[in-house]
Amino acid sequence: MLEIEIKVRVSDLAPIRERLRASGAELLGEGMEYDAYYQGPLRNFAETDEALRLREAGETAVLTYKGPKVGCGTLKAREELNIRVESRETMDAILNRIGYQKTAAVQKYRESYRVGRATVTLDQVDGLGTFAEVEAAGDLTPEEAEKEIERIATEYGIIGERFCLSYLELYLEKEQSAQS
Amino acid sequence: MLEIEIKVRVSDLAPIRERLRASGAELLGEGMEYDAYYQGPLRNFAETDEALRLREAGETAVLTYKGPKVGCGTLKAREELNIRVESRETMDAILNRIGYQKTAAVQKYRESYRVGRATVTLDQVDGLGTFAEVEAAGDLTPEEAEKEIERIATEYGIIGERFCLSYLELYLEKEQSAQS
Repeated sequence: MLEIEIKVRVSDLAPIRERLRASGAELLGEGMEYDAYYQGPLRNFAETDEALRLREAGETAVLTYKGPKVGCGTLKAREELNIRVESRETMDAILNRIGYQKTAAVQKYRESYRVGRATVTLDQVDGLGTFAEVEAAGDLTPEEAEKEIERIATEYGIIGERFCLSYLELYLEKEQSAQS
Repeated sequence: MLEIEIKVRVSDLAPIRERLRASGAELLGEGMEYDAYYQGPLRNFAETDEALRLREAGETAVLTYKGPKVGCGTLKAREELNIRVESRETMDAILNRIGYQKTAAVQKYRESYRVGRATVTLDQVDGLGTFAEVEAAGDLTPEEAEKEIERIATEYGIIGERFCLSYLELYLEKEQSAQS
């Protein structure tokens, strides 16, 4: 699946949330998400712009591989493979045995809404700030995805600095600047 | 979890099956199991006596890591980590992306019975023959496990050549001897 989305730094989630709720957008879920990122023997995922992530949210654990970003103008696109797994602890242990170690962790409070043919997420990321994402449904063409994302961004006031870096990359940048 | 078991080559599964059924042993399940084994960049799992396996049985997919065998007299013991995953195809794709390729496949028809504090499995393995395994429950000590396994082997007539090789190793041995 190709993930196509925008990620926007916003100063306040409240006005976006109000518009979403006023329009009757369905709340898909909300809660803390704990993301652990892994590095292994194959290659340096920071250099190749890949990511291997194990997420825990409530009772659910999901393993995700993300490929290098293939587009990064105003839209961000990359291959994404997600699989739900039975247990975070056992998956972590198996990853360790096959050479993958947890190297970073990011946690956030996320709300997700279904809007049109996309998902809007409102994130409060520990230590990084507040962000809104608009991700197109997986069955859209890139052209349809872009159109739907821009329509939603305008309608719900999701306006601000757009960027391509993942929360992991923002986190690592911040770590580096704190050390230098 | 430490897996403690015996694996016995038997010429006929029918008499063991009859005794199991006559004793009222609970049939836990039966059906085809498709096992794919993976090799990756970390080390040669055939040399280190490890295994990374993705099993599909009916609607279920399970990823398993097995550590080196730690005992191999009459009993076989090794670390085993199992995790149920949502989809065989997606797990295979993620393994590929992180450097693990499918290198061998074994398929078998398996019946599993709960007997005392152990599981007895009767296997017809494609190209390899018929086998019975007795695996102790994970909460037994090694001493309890050995006692329970021997009691069950005697009671149900699970008698024959005991060996430590996995089906994968038997399969690879056969492949090699066919080539030489």
